Amino acid sequence: MKIETKIERFTTPLYLESGRILEPYQIAYETYGELNSDASNVILVCHALSGSHHASGTYEGDRKAGWWDKLIGDGKAIDTTKYFVISTNVIGSCFGSTGPMSDNYPSDKPYRLKFPVLTIKDMIKAQKQLLSNLGIYHLKAIVGGSMGGMQTLQFAVDYPNFADKVISLASTYATQPWTIGFNKVAIEAIRRDPRFKNGEYEKGAFKEKGLDGLAIGRIAGHISYLSPDSMNSKFGRNYVNNDGLFELFGRYEVERYMEYNTNNFSKLFDPMSYLYIVKAINTFNLSRGYDSLYDAILRIKAETTLISFSSDYLFFPREMEHIYNMMRRNEQSVNYHEIDSNYGHDAFLVEIDKFDHIIKEVLDG
Amino acid sequence: MKIETKIERFTTPLYLESGRILEPYQIAYETYGELNSDASNVILVCHALSGSHHASGTYEGDRKAGWWDKLIGDGKAIDTTKYFVISTNVIGSCFGSTGPMSDNYPSDKPYRLKFPVLTIKDMIKAQKQLLSNLGIYHLKAIVGGSMGGMQTLQFAVDYPNFADKVISLASTYATQPWTIGFNKVAIEAIRRDPRFKNGEYEKGAFKEKGLDGLAIGRIAGHISYLSPDSMNSKFGRNYVNNDGLFELFGRYEVERYMEYNTNNFSKLFDPMSYLYIVKAINTFNLSRGYDSLYDAILRIKAETTLISFSSDYLFFPREMEHIYNMMRRNEQSVNYHEIDSNYGHDAFLVEIDKFDHIIKEVLDG
Repeated sequence: MKIETKIERFTTPLYLESGRILEPYQIAYETYGELNSDASNVILVCHALSGSHHASGTYEGDRKAGWWDKLIGDGKAIDTTKYFVISTNVIGSCFGSTGPMSDNYPSDKPYRLKFPVLTIKDMIKAQKQLLSNLGIYHLKAIVGGSMGGMQTLQFAVDYPNFADKVISLASTYATQPWTIGFNKVAIEAIRRDPRFKNGEYEKGAFKEKGLDGLAIGRIAGHISYLSPDSMNSKFGRNYVNNDGLFELFGRYEVERYMEYNTNNFSKLFDPMSYLYIVKAINTFNLSRGYDSLYDAILRIKAETTLISFSSDYLFFPREMEHIYNMMRRNEQSVNYHEIDSNYGHDAFLVEIDKFDHIIKEVLDG
Repeated sequence: MKIETKIERFTTPLYLESGRILEPYQIAYETYGELNSDASNVILVCHALSGSHHASGTYEGDRKAGWWDKLIGDGKAIDTTKYFVISTNVIGSCFGSTGPMSDNYPSDKPYRLKFPVLTIKDMIKAQKQLLSNLGIYHLKAIVGGSMGGMQTLQFAVDYPNFADKVISLASTYATQPWTIGFNKVAIEAIRRDPRFKNGEYEKGAFKEKGLDGLAIGRIAGHISYLSPDSMNSKFGRNYVNNDGLFELFGRYEVERYMEYNTNNFSKLFDPMSYLYIVKAINTFNLSRGYDSLYDAILRIKAETTLISFSSDYLFFPREMEHIYNMMRRNEQSVNYHEIDSNYGHDAFLVEIDKFDHIIKEVLDG
């Protein structure tokens, strides 16, 4: 499967939920498969906090495939021999779409902290604009996990006739204080890092040595993406070097894992984008703009599939169940699956074989 | 109840689990109630990570009473009209007992990172030495929660004939990677904070402006001390200033709570002590030094009471249950209570009325 990053530029203003305007802006995206003649086979895929438009396939020279490569491809659950799949980088992110380190037109200086706060509503509005530009006015389905799952639900609420089906994994109807607490670690760690310079760092400043604040915030993230059980089976109480048990900075394997991953991450991800996306996650609340959550959810017309994971410690299964119960009472078209998994929140990325049959059935059924 | 901080100095060496020696050292402590003539009414109380010897009563000019004031006092569950209660500050801490910022005798310079790594075993060994100095060779009971609960269990394993009863709350048999993960946030945030200067900061450097790294680490701590439910009922999705919803650094109330508490904490607690105590918690494993956990626990002769809290997300009830099941199979004297609570790990500090009758019954029975 040939993949390439495409960029779509928009000169029409994007009216944001905050009342502010983003103009101009651009969206980076990938597509997989072929658009059919009546454009009726389009599936939109939505990524999570640290994800990108690179959901499937492997770029030349890259070791790692896209984040949902096991789910999207020829003959896979999201079958690219049948469907035309579009995966975009959300606005606010740092992989090609307009974000806080993009130039604040007409100047050639980055927005930095002048970038407007974005919400999940804004992200999907921008995606919808991209689809319009591509001549796509209706979707077969929208699929996403975590923050991607928020986008699928927000689509279903804000644009009830836009997609036939939405599939939301490991997500919620509104971000709860537990999750806002985890995000707070990242916000404070980034803000208080002197090298962050209140956002006045040079572009690319962290390529060699990542921002400590982002790495530290990401450690808290990793806790929330895993689960007590997955940590037990993955690391147990193993120590990196048993002779060093009584060294103050000797490390357990779980510590090494976190250090290694987060140090790498802090070189690859822009801390300002992290702040803006975390803000979008924190402010996510399906009911905002409607009289109540009930009213918001009552708008949904798409066939809705909700998938949660038993050990998800970030967005608990009961949060998805809450949506399910509400929709079922309203006799809306909804089905709910709690997948038994020890992998915590990460299950939506790593335990594909536990739920891909559900997605296949929904899409093909 | 009159309270005062007492200091006991030791010039005999303390042989540490690491093989290193602490000499000289001192322990700060408080006592409540009166020692009876045959010294048979002594109860030792053990504090958690950020606690101190100040468990009960209120110092003149202080607004806040000791951390277990609702549990310890005249006519309370740990009844100071009957019992002589001793509460010590653990070695390694920063409230009067010898810790990493104490002078490295015979120099008048602090140990800093040269301070030996301490373990829970070392902490209780020092406490036992204090008791010997006070002429106390046997305890009626040892009571503690969280890291204090670790100490009670370690006492029961290491010195099986020393206490008649041990009561351990919200604790574990060995710290699990989930908890080590939370601690990792603090370790990295402190280490990477430039003002920490690899431990070479001036004593008292953080009294005016706390160390950011400690505050950030403590945010992660607070997540683990609360629970999703307690956060929901305490904060919900309330925003500090609704007009500021679209300000990047606008805050949810859960964020304000964490900022406020952790900023204060970082002025009061020494970051080096935090590193050393966190290390002691991470390395806690009842089985170390014995052939197995089974062998360690089989040594226990004290009547053992284990109390867990249903919503504890730091030390899960199943960890206490594991000890209970093992002891019951061995036909050891043990009882276990899982208290229904929404307050998370903090329940052992704030939901006293849900378990004080258990402690009273155990002590008086």
